[in-house]
Amino acid sequence: MTRTTPAGTPLGDSFHVYDTTLRDGAQREGISYSVADKLAVARLVDGLGVGFIEGGWPGAMPKDTEFFARAAAGELQLRHAALVAFGSTRRAGSTAAKDPQVQALLASQAPVVTLVAKSDRRHIERALRTDVAEAAEMVRDTVAFLVGEGRRVFLDAEHFFDGYAFDPDTSLRVLTAGFEAGADVVVLCDTNGGQLPLGLAETVREVIARTGFRVGIHCQDDTGCAVANSVAAVQAGATHVQCTANGYGERAGNADLFPVIGNLAVKLRMDVLPEGKLADLTHVSHALAELANIAPDTHQAYVGHSTFAHKAGLHASAIKVDPLLYNHIDPTVVGNDMRVLVTEMAGRASLELKGHELGVDLVGRPEAVDSALRKVKDLESRGWSFEAADASLELLLRGEIAVVDPDAPATGHPFELESYRVILDHRLDGEVVSEATVKVHVAGHRVIATAEGNGPVHALDAALRRALVPHLPWVDEVELTDYKVRILTGASRATQHGTDAVTRVLVQSSDRELEWTTVGVHGNIVEASWLALCDALAHKAMRVRSGVGAGGLRG
Amino acid sequence: MTRTTPAGTPLGDSFHVYDTTLRDGAQREGISYSVADKLAVARLVDGLGVGFIEGGWPGAMPKDTEFFARAAAGELQLRHAALVAFGSTRRAGSTAAKDPQVQALLASQAPVVTLVAKSDRRHIERALRTDVAEAAEMVRDTVAFLVGEGRRVFLDAEHFFDGYAFDPDTSLRVLTAGFEAGADVVVLCDTNGGQLPLGLAETVREVIARTGFRVGIHCQDDTGCAVANSVAAVQAGATHVQCTANGYGERAGNADLFPVIGNLAVKLRMDVLPEGKLADLTHVSHALAELANIAPDTHQAYVGHSTFAHKAGLHASAIKVDPLLYNHIDPTVVGNDMRVLVTEMAGRASLELKGHELGVDLVGRPEAVDSALRKVKDLESRGWSFEAADASLELLLRGEIAVVDPDAPATGHPFELESYRVILDHRLDGEVVSEATVKVHVAGHRVIATAEGNGPVHALDAALRRALVPHLPWVDEVELTDYKVRILTGASRATQHGTDAVTRVLVQSSDRELEWTTVGVHGNIVEASWLALCDALAHKAMRVRSGVGAGGLRG
Repeated sequence: MTRTTPAGTPLGDSFHVYDTTLRDGAQREGISYSVADKLAVARLVDGLGVGFIEGGWPGAMPKDTEFFARAAAGELQLRHAALVAFGSTRRAGSTAAKDPQVQALLASQAPVVTLVAKSDRRHIERALRTDVAEAAEMVRDTVAFLVGEGRRVFLDAEHFFDGYAFDPDTSLRVLTAGFEAGADVVVLCDTNGGQLPLGLAETVREVIARTGFRVGIHCQDDTGCAVANSVAAVQAGATHVQCTANGYGERAGNADLFPVIGNLAVKLRMDVLPEGKLADLTHVSHALAELANIAPDTHQAYVGHSTFAHKAGLHASAIKVDPLLYNHIDPTVVGNDMRVLVTEMAGRASLELKGHELGVDLVGRPEAVDSALRKVKDLESRGWSFEAADASLELLLRGEIAVVDPDAPATGHPFELESYRVILDHRLDGEVVSEATVKVHVAGHRVIATAEGNGPVHALDAALRRALVPHLPWVDEVELTDYKVRILTGASRATQHGTDAVTRVLVQSSDRELEWTTVGVHGNIVEASWLALCDALAHKAMRVRSGVGAGGLRG
Repeated sequence: MTRTTPAGTPLGDSFHVYDTTLRDGAQREGISYSVADKLAVARLVDGLGVGFIEGGWPGAMPKDTEFFARAAAGELQLRHAALVAFGSTRRAGSTAAKDPQVQALLASQAPVVTLVAKSDRRHIERALRTDVAEAAEMVRDTVAFLVGEGRRVFLDAEHFFDGYAFDPDTSLRVLTAGFEAGADVVVLCDTNGGQLPLGLAETVREVIARTGFRVGIHCQDDTGCAVANSVAAVQAGATHVQCTANGYGERAGNADLFPVIGNLAVKLRMDVLPEGKLADLTHVSHALAELANIAPDTHQAYVGHSTFAHKAGLHASAIKVDPLLYNHIDPTVVGNDMRVLVTEMAGRASLELKGHELGVDLVGRPEAVDSALRKVKDLESRGWSFEAADASLELLLRGEIAVVDPDAPATGHPFELESYRVILDHRLDGEVVSEATVKVHVAGHRVIATAEGNGPVHALDAALRRALVPHLPWVDEVELTDYKVRILTGASRATQHGTDAVTRVLVQSSDRELEWTTVGVHGNIVEASWLALCDALAHKAMRVRSGVGAGGLRG
């Protein structure tokens, strides 16, 4: 991977959308990405068409070192973005060539490096415990060394705005050291997140006027203004904007990639993404929330589930006249949709669209669509979510068609459950053992099978396979590749034993051809998992029986 | 209640903090305030010291009519704020005096009325289906009538910014009609929420320059800039700012009262609240979230639980030097506090800081710190996470101290497990039943207890309580208030049965004094939950035994 500029965006290298979800975003409380998660995040963000993906801090974090190694080994093929490694300048009193941390940046094989440097005199003197001359030399030396090694280098000027207000000469000296040594963007960081847009825009304008450098912006959200500050900086002349997915990040978080892109693309009419990608904004935001295991913010600007939803009141009568009078943009532009007042229409349209995407032709079947819509709404009100469970949705849609069309493929489960029992023992010797027994009817036989597993769901899955495989050999092809659990607390408050909660389970399965995701919801986590497992097999069975369903499925 | 100006604020009537949580905030999807809720919200917001509280739309919403009736009857005694009724101008072709909706505003007995009027020509013509002259006359007539009846009147100019961009003359004509008839603030509303701060500030400046009117601002958050837009409008000359608690509102929501106040008070140094009230910001925000039955946003600017939490190793060592170098403000100013997250990124410095926060003195105990750090890193590499599990971390730290200090409080579990068994039946009739049996040694007795539950963890928790309560009555005080599950896939790929996965469970508990969170990790979800439950009881036991641990703990 040697790309150092964005590919496929109309603005080319003249404007950078730079994603740091994997480094700065991962500092959000509660996020703990595995290396596999990191690869998946990078693929999603690349699919959206951003120009740069900062993958982590090799050398400082073992997982990040492994991420870059696996990326370099070919596990990550970026179509649009250049891959960036983050690191700090060399230590005081050393040389870049000998600094182990700088060596780790080289070893990562990332073609682009973003170096963080202190640009506030107080930080240089009190945290770094050195003087301004040495701080500038650390920047110069490290940038020059990495540029000499063929890397493209960006400089993150940490605490820039606070430092510039305190002592502008020091802050500019750090920028100059980096720029003259070959860094081609100096990124002004509002590290403590204390800026407001009018003042920040003024500073960005002034720095560009005084230096002529190419300037980037990196905002934290401590005043609730990170998105506004980022956009204001671009209006003031910044041509590189660093964001994180859904604003994940330390403290109040970072500038949120999705509204920043929305504002730049829709409000400032800048073609910051490759053609057609803006409509992926909502989907990618939600998928990244799933990967972070954080519930999507339903009121997030542009991409939230409620963001174009209108509740009764002042607008009710008028909105039918012209929806665009009551929304700041057409929600479909960013892949979102309008809900509530025009739900019938919006819901139907999006369901038809979704069906089309899944290869299920709903056009000319209004009763099937209406019935499916009712079921989806009812299930979603009870905690189901089909947003990430295409295979369960496909089964539901095809089931509605099968009601009215005898030639449509059958969607029923390939077996009938009589009962199951799971026994979990924490034994005297400390071992924890799970054992499951299922009684099912399959292909005209009543089968009883028992298996052990690492946990109750694993045992149940193993017992079911043992029961089915002799009669349905294709079951053996199905692998369970991912399993996600979310506890949803109901509208009423949690009681002493959390009994109001329902559990939503997402199961991702694969065979030689496809990956597909199914969902199950129940008050009991094992039953919720069971429901998702059954849907996974029903989906495979449908394909085995009829060859359909291999269409547009994703994980 | 006849007050028409704010009481007790240094800025008096010259600047208005105006809260519309009860009207515009209530339009958020999922909020449904009872009249009692509305009274409680008004008391909390008044306690914070805002200048105006918009209580609702009398006549249009029965609950709002009742709210005003009960307020007028003496159920609501506001100490700082003036009470405001919201309504629209009279209908086209009628007179204000005869308009039932205008009569309802009078009947509400609210001393201040905010009238909403369309100020975008397209809305006047296409939604109102009248002409600009009549629209202006509707405003003039209604304002004049209410002022004549002794009310103070504000005018909300709906869709102002979109309208002004489309046809400024119409929009200014509506403002002028209201101002000349006696409205003493004209509020420029970004109703569709599509504005960005630099452009919005420019428009506010221009309108003030052209009219000389007193101008207010009302922003929706559809670009993610409502807070920034509100503050920018104030910098541009607006002296009245309309917000909702926690940004509740239709679609993406409204400008969030708390960061708006934080920014005005701390960044622009405006005394917008009565003296001493700024420190209530965090508490009032969380209390209002409880009343709305919406989980507080942990990353909300100024007031979020995580908003001053530091995770990065980069910062943690330097934070000890000077916390204000790494926070944009002193968190106690807004009633929040700083936390340190212990993660794999952390070092000795963060662990000492964290210990200090938890009331565990690690200074001068380098062996205990080193040993604890090794354990934390080892556990975190196996999927444990202490950043949200302060109570488990406290047990670990105190355990290390207890090794070297015989006087330190004991941290052991209050009982010994012999074994447990959980049986889960999906019965023939479709019912799913969970039953657990535990065998434990407690207070010198061997106890066996069995209980049923909604799921395996619920059953296990119930059986354990049944076994322990007769011997440890304090167990009954402990409530399980939240339960979170995360499946972590290991570095290697998930196998056919997902056997590489471990499960991380976070359990939040509370008693009359405290909330505390514990963590458990295991390949088996039930065992992981068991470990977290046991830590929860061990933490309580430690407090019961020694009185320690009630220090800095939060959920």
